[in-house]
Amino acid sequence: MGLNNTTFFFYYLCYILLMNRRSIEDKVIKRATPSLKEREETRKIVDELKEKVNELALKFNLDVEPLLVGSVAKNTCLSKPDIDLFLVFPSKTSREDLEKYGLKIGKEVLKGEERYAEHPYIHGIYKGFEVDIVPCYRIEDAAQKMSAVDRTPFHTAYIIKNLRNEQRREVQLLKRFLKGIGIYGAEAEIQGFSGYLCELLILKYGTFESTIKNAVLWKGGHKIVLESRAKKTFNDALIVIDPVDPNRNVAAALSLESFCTFIYACKEFLANPEMEFFFPNEVSPLSQKEIIKRLKERGYLIGLVFKKPNVVDDVLYPQLQKCRKVICEFCERNDFKVHHSSFFVNSDVFLLIEFETSQLPILKKHYGPLIWHSNAPVFLEKWRSAKRAITEPYIEGSRWTVDIKRNYTHAKALIETEIENLNLGKNINPIVREKFELIENEDLVKKRYFRYLTIFLERKFLWEY
Amino acid sequence: MGLNNTTFFFYYLCYILLMNRRSIEDKVIKRATPSLKEREETRKIVDELKEKVNELALKFNLDVEPLLVGSVAKNTCLSKPDIDLFLVFPSKTSREDLEKYGLKIGKEVLKGEERYAEHPYIHGIYKGFEVDIVPCYRIEDAAQKMSAVDRTPFHTAYIIKNLRNEQRREVQLLKRFLKGIGIYGAEAEIQGFSGYLCELLILKYGTFESTIKNAVLWKGGHKIVLESRAKKTFNDALIVIDPVDPNRNVAAALSLESFCTFIYACKEFLANPEMEFFFPNEVSPLSQKEIIKRLKERGYLIGLVFKKPNVVDDVLYPQLQKCRKVICEFCERNDFKVHHSSFFVNSDVFLLIEFETSQLPILKKHYGPLIWHSNAPVFLEKWRSAKRAITEPYIEGSRWTVDIKRNYTHAKALIETEIENLNLGKNINPIVREKFELIENEDLVKKRYFRYLTIFLERKFLWEY
Repeated sequence: MGLNNTTFFFYYLCYILLMNRRSIEDKVIKRATPSLKEREETRKIVDELKEKVNELALKFNLDVEPLLVGSVAKNTCLSKPDIDLFLVFPSKTSREDLEKYGLKIGKEVLKGEERYAEHPYIHGIYKGFEVDIVPCYRIEDAAQKMSAVDRTPFHTAYIIKNLRNEQRREVQLLKRFLKGIGIYGAEAEIQGFSGYLCELLILKYGTFESTIKNAVLWKGGHKIVLESRAKKTFNDALIVIDPVDPNRNVAAALSLESFCTFIYACKEFLANPEMEFFFPNEVSPLSQKEIIKRLKERGYLIGLVFKKPNVVDDVLYPQLQKCRKVICEFCERNDFKVHHSSFFVNSDVFLLIEFETSQLPILKKHYGPLIWHSNAPVFLEKWRSAKRAITEPYIEGSRWTVDIKRNYTHAKALIETEIENLNLGKNINPIVREKFELIENEDLVKKRYFRYLTIFLERKFLWEY
Repeated sequence: MGLNNTTFFFYYLCYILLMNRRSIEDKVIKRATPSLKEREETRKIVDELKEKVNELALKFNLDVEPLLVGSVAKNTCLSKPDIDLFLVFPSKTSREDLEKYGLKIGKEVLKGEERYAEHPYIHGIYKGFEVDIVPCYRIEDAAQKMSAVDRTPFHTAYIIKNLRNEQRREVQLLKRFLKGIGIYGAEAEIQGFSGYLCELLILKYGTFESTIKNAVLWKGGHKIVLESRAKKTFNDALIVIDPVDPNRNVAAALSLESFCTFIYACKEFLANPEMEFFFPNEVSPLSQKEIIKRLKERGYLIGLVFKKPNVVDDVLYPQLQKCRKVICEFCERNDFKVHHSSFFVNSDVFLLIEFETSQLPILKKHYGPLIWHSNAPVFLEKWRSAKRAITEPYIEGSRWTVDIKRNYTHAKALIETEIENLNLGKNINPIVREKFELIENEDLVKKRYFRYLTIFLERKFLWEY
């Protein structure tokens, strides 16, 4: 009887958890995906756009066809989707004509701005929808060598062909889950999961629930193959072989931290299914007083502030990541150990670096070659007469060593003086060389980026707010 | 004509250098080795000692024989040699009797003190000579398993048999050279070249000059085989297979730094042959003012002072080396980077440690398991509720990480509080637990160890003074 009760209770608990998850899923779908009305409206807009393209093709006497791709075409989009409309040119079109006429049509339709991925394209707003109009080549065979842009129609066709109708809901759940935990999107700013990657995961595992139940078992370098195996090896956090091109990893843009965040979020969601995973609460910023208190109990923080370069995010974020890396590695080479670093963008860029210590002693141990190495005499010659040497070269273990004077004993002075000699990125260099500001410790609150400082100090996951 | 002049000048220079080296060698031999009178006196003392041993053997009715070993027996000694007299007992003697009667005879002859290597032995002064009287077993075959003590008679016999008469001078030169540059002796205090090792090097290379000309070409792990090859592999700086026991490396006690110092000294001596290599000048201590000035331009120095344990050097020095290592490694584990450490012994032990910095910030990054590791939940459990945690656990790369509070932010406080929990060595522990003193930076001059501080600060080679 006791056993039966326990067994009953166990199954009852499983049932409650399952029902809870199901009811959450239903709520998410209701809140996050387009209504029937919205879907019809989108369809109408797409038809209008296609119509306009056809008219212009006729006007310019071009053999060009509009092709809807992306999540709207695949019916896996969340509310307020971007519309991706490709202009398919014959493969014999010259690259010059493709760009010229592609952009011309795009501009006439959208009156938007020119952007650049692998081809240039036009981005704009059309009756409240964000629209990309992208010229591309007609390619008959996916085995042909092609750009990411040219590959998109094949992705769209593959998903339309293989994704079952009832699975579209599962893709939407997964996308919203990833959005909620902050890792939806393959762009440099996010380094998360692309929409196409979500669709492939649902193709692999069948449902959202099954995907997260499988993901908790993943380890770094996990590999997923849907069709044919890859011919090359990948060294990424997650490897999902593109069924359309087996030489490509669909998850190549996913960072190791995003990958790990996903695994952990799946674990937490399974143990405790809450709406916060899909729709996190706003970050409630700490008070100025609390921020100052917390800054005081940490290491040495320095904020580098400069004007945001006037370039699109796809150009800006990779440069900012490079800039962060270059500065941190430069400081570490000068023995200032970096604990954390991150950046925040509004009209300014605010790069925050936390050091173990602000100041190092003047003395630095400088290691030279092994004493039997052919370079040993050069080392001895150099350091015996060097102004910076505090001692004569001496032997430590089997290595020539000398105690020398550091060039910089303060992290702030190091950055202040040397930053203009670092290559921080094409669009960042001229701005920083013109003007930058360095702010230390408690002075950081002056900029009033309380939300950003809160995130930096608390290091919570988004669903934990 | 020009070429002939150059050639002539080159050979002339070689000749000058050679003559210079030769004349230095002659001077060294005259100054460092026993005169004929001194040799005769030594021989007389040895005969007296042997006589006494024989008398006592008769008195105690023991089948024991005196045997002169070491450098006096081999005629390779420097002035004021130690006399090593072995008491050879029959191999069937019990260990108990060997020690009992061995020490009894030793004490009657020398009135010296009991010491302990692998066997106990007696050390004392006899008519101005330092004498060791050491009981050992008669062993017929060197292939037998035996102690270092038992091996000594075989070493002596091997050298007497193989070293040519004119090579004794070369051994003496090499010994005096090593003494001059501070690395003569295999004891823990020196970790240099033993007398037997010097003799083997001369057997190998023929002369002192040839030895140093070969040594400049040595690299770490250099191997010298005189008779049969070793059956095992050695991982030492220099490997010289004992011709008496091919499983033993005669240079096992030589430290990597002593090995490198030798190579470098040989290079310098060949380029610039000076008496200072054999008879270095006294270290001229820096003035108190100069020491304070130099201490100020370095890192953070701390001196640990405690009473010298009342044990013989053979016991003391290995313990002090261990003590130094244990404290430095403990500090490094607590993130206080050690630049240099060394010790100095008189009635006190004075252990000097130089840190990169005296103080670290309260915040410390603590790395946990990979997020897919089975230990991850334990780590999360522990640090989510920990008082020392400054943040929640967060993901860095693929690892759980948490910012925590350091237990100690000052190197001095760390040592002061934790030293009693460290195992510093059997004879050091009780002394340190009773009383120790920590002295910082400029206060170090108060102890007035100016010579030692000068050596620590200047890091010169002995021949450079």
